[in-house]
Amino acid sequence: MIVLYTDFGPGGPYTGQMKAVLAREAPGVPVIDLADDLPACDPEPAAYLLAALAPAFPAGAVFVCVVDPGVGSARAPVALNAGGRWYVGPDNGLLAIVARRAGDARWFTITWRPAGLSASFHGRDLFAPVAARIARGEDVPGTPLDGAGAVGAGWPDDRAAIVYIDPYGNAMTGIRAARLAEDAVVIAGARRLARLRTFSDAARGAAFWYENANGLAEIAVNRGRADRVLGLRVGTPVGIEAAGGTG
Amino acid sequence: MIVLYTDFGPGGPYTGQMKAVLAREAPGVPVIDLADDLPACDPEPAAYLLAALAPAFPAGAVFVCVVDPGVGSARAPVALNAGGRWYVGPDNGLLAIVARRAGDARWFTITWRPAGLSASFHGRDLFAPVAARIARGEDVPGTPLDGAGAVGAGWPDDRAAIVYIDPYGNAMTGIRAARLAEDAVVIAGARRLARLRTFSDAARGAAFWYENANGLAEIAVNRGRADRVLGLRVGTPVGIEAAGGTG
Amino acid sequence: MIVLYTDFGPGGPYTGQMKAVLAREAPGVPVIDLADDLPACDPEPAAYLLAALAPAFPAGAVFVCVVDPGVGSARAPVALNAGGRWYVGPDNGLLAIVARRAGDARWFTITWRPAGLSASFHGRDLFAPVAARIARGEDVPGTPLDGAGAVGAGWPDDRAAIVYIDPYGNAMTGIRAARLAEDAVVIAGARRLARLRTFSDAARGAAFWYENANGLAEIAVNRGRADRVLGLRVGTPVGIEAAGGTG
Repeated sequence: MIVLYTDFGPGGPYTGQMKAVLAREAPGVPVIDLADDLPACDPEPAAYLLAALAPAFPAGAVFVCVVDPGVGSARAPVALNAGGRWYVGPDNGLLAIVARRAGDARWFTITWRPAGLSASFHGRDLFAPVAARIARGEDVPGTPLDGAGAVGAGWPDDRAAIVYIDPYGNAMTGIRAARLAEDAVVIAGARRLARLRTFSDAARGAAFWYENANGLAEIAVNRGRADRVLGLRVGTPVGIEAAGGTG
Repeated sequence: MIVLYTDFGPGGPYTGQMKAVLAREAPGVPVIDLADDLPACDPEPAAYLLAALAPAFPAGAVFVCVVDPGVGSARAPVALNAGGRWYVGPDNGLLAIVARRAGDARWFTITWRPAGLSASFHGRDLFAPVAARIARGEDVPGTPLDGAGAVGAGWPDDRAAIVYIDPYGNAMTGIRAARLAEDAVVIAGARRLARLRTFSDAARGAAFWYENANGLAEIAVNRGRADRVLGLRVGTPVGIEAAGGTG
Repeated sequence: MIVLYTDFGPGGPYTGQMKAVLAREAPGVPVIDLADDLPACDPEPAAYLLAALAPAFPAGAVFVCVVDPGVGSARAPVALNAGGRWYVGPDNGLLAIVARRAGDARWFTITWRPAGLSASFHGRDLFAPVAARIARGEDVPGTPLDGAGAVGAGWPDDRAAIVYIDPYGNAMTGIRAARLAEDAVVIAGARRLARLRTFSDAARGAAFWYENANGLAEIAVNRGRADRVLGLRVGTPVGIEAAGGTG
């Protein structure tokens, strides 16, 4: 299975161009669109979301991860094996949190280059062909890399900020809910929010936080858009306090 | 064939997460994205659109239908066999019109629960695995249900309101065009609209109604957006009168 | 391989309805979504973009091309074989530039009609089934057509205007970069833009033009949206001059 994780946008020809390459280079391998609406050109929030989403995928899955504002510059293309899954993408932090949370991260610098490498679309020209190779069972065409030198190696375990706004307007933080006390209060958009189990436990229009289906602390409004109601966007910081604390 | 019919949004990881489950649980079964832009959290209009779209799908198709604002509450998960096709989703009316129009509806309450059932994403955790089972030819993991007790059993045969705005801005009503006289006038957004055969029969910028390719009465503007021109959105009521009537 | 190239929109049931037909008529053939966000009802810009995108697809690929404001009128359905690939769509210019650039274009008027041909959705009812036939290796159900009579036969080789805004806000022109001098200046939105190699060679927020990964001259802003910064949309004319010329 090959999984696409990009900021290419819903619409646009880029995902289709990637799939054409994958169909040619790894025929018969299922390709799953996991995300095409990651915050454009901002690998850090996408790194925390990826670490939340990836564990549900089967061993052997190959993620092609492209949030790549530095394409065409000196930033290195890398591959990562972590938790039994493969990840291919730019060395800009996008894969850093997945690597951190796995006990067994092995990094590679991709040294292979295609004959016709464009200056602006390494997803199609480099990352997709490499992912196809790995999905076919071949070795990574590169050399081992010390992960301590990869971009993002110093980022925190969890990120106390909004990392993704979903199509309903729910705002995911980069904080794993399991790290928070049951009665923790999340402070976002100048509001102190209590924890609920899920949407149907909130009054219509009420804001709350809950552990979402991927294990992240998420800020939501029942039958409403939390992003608009609370003024949240990717990067908005959130605070945490024990219940009863002074807001 | 498994068909996805949701309000998950273009973009967002939810469709991809469903597909990862389906790839694992029903490998090799084609998965078709029929809609991911249904009106969020509003099962009634989506029910009328589903009844218009479903008949073109082959016997044996399994629809996974997720417009599910009550996820995590007491609302039951159900499966429906109607017209030779299967439907899996919440008992909130979403499947009610498909059932009504088929002469042979058989309902089931899904009693199976997965080991790790999240509070907010039954599409991934419950409906997709059940759809995969049905697509594999297994029995519904549940018990028969009297459809007279399903939500939406009392809804009208057709719905005199806008049920869907398509990406061009065309506004579909919940009324089957075959139920209307050839010269019926549709009243929407304070305008009385005559029937035409299709777009190219209208002057540029002119508003009209016609029988769309799925059999619904649809309000459109040639080379324009009917939703903006006429001020229509999902839920806007429409009126019907015989031609020559007083508007 | 069947490739979908449409203005159906991200979201909306139309792409899924096409895929259901293709799954039935050409089971097992991979279907690639290349674009669903082409400028609605405007075949000319989409023709120049198609000619840039198509050459990367394998021989034998069948493109289903639907930007079809004239659906239901007298405009003919056509098929085109060019450069080893097949194209099916309306005779409204959408296929004209692909045909022009291939030395071997063979056109056909599609004479087959399905039993149930809707007035508004020939993509599903006519073009998809014909594409499936061709993908199965059957002959085009039609008669040869003199391409000199096809719509768009007189359009220019390149189009000095914006033909597509991508999801990042980059503005593709209809001009092949290889036709321009290395030091050519592109004039767009009242700005004179120099050529750079790619995004990372520009200062943050700086506008430039470059040869994009599909060979077109594209106007971009590093870490910004060129469409908003420069006031560009599909159809905005662009000018070309040699560097040092008077703007």
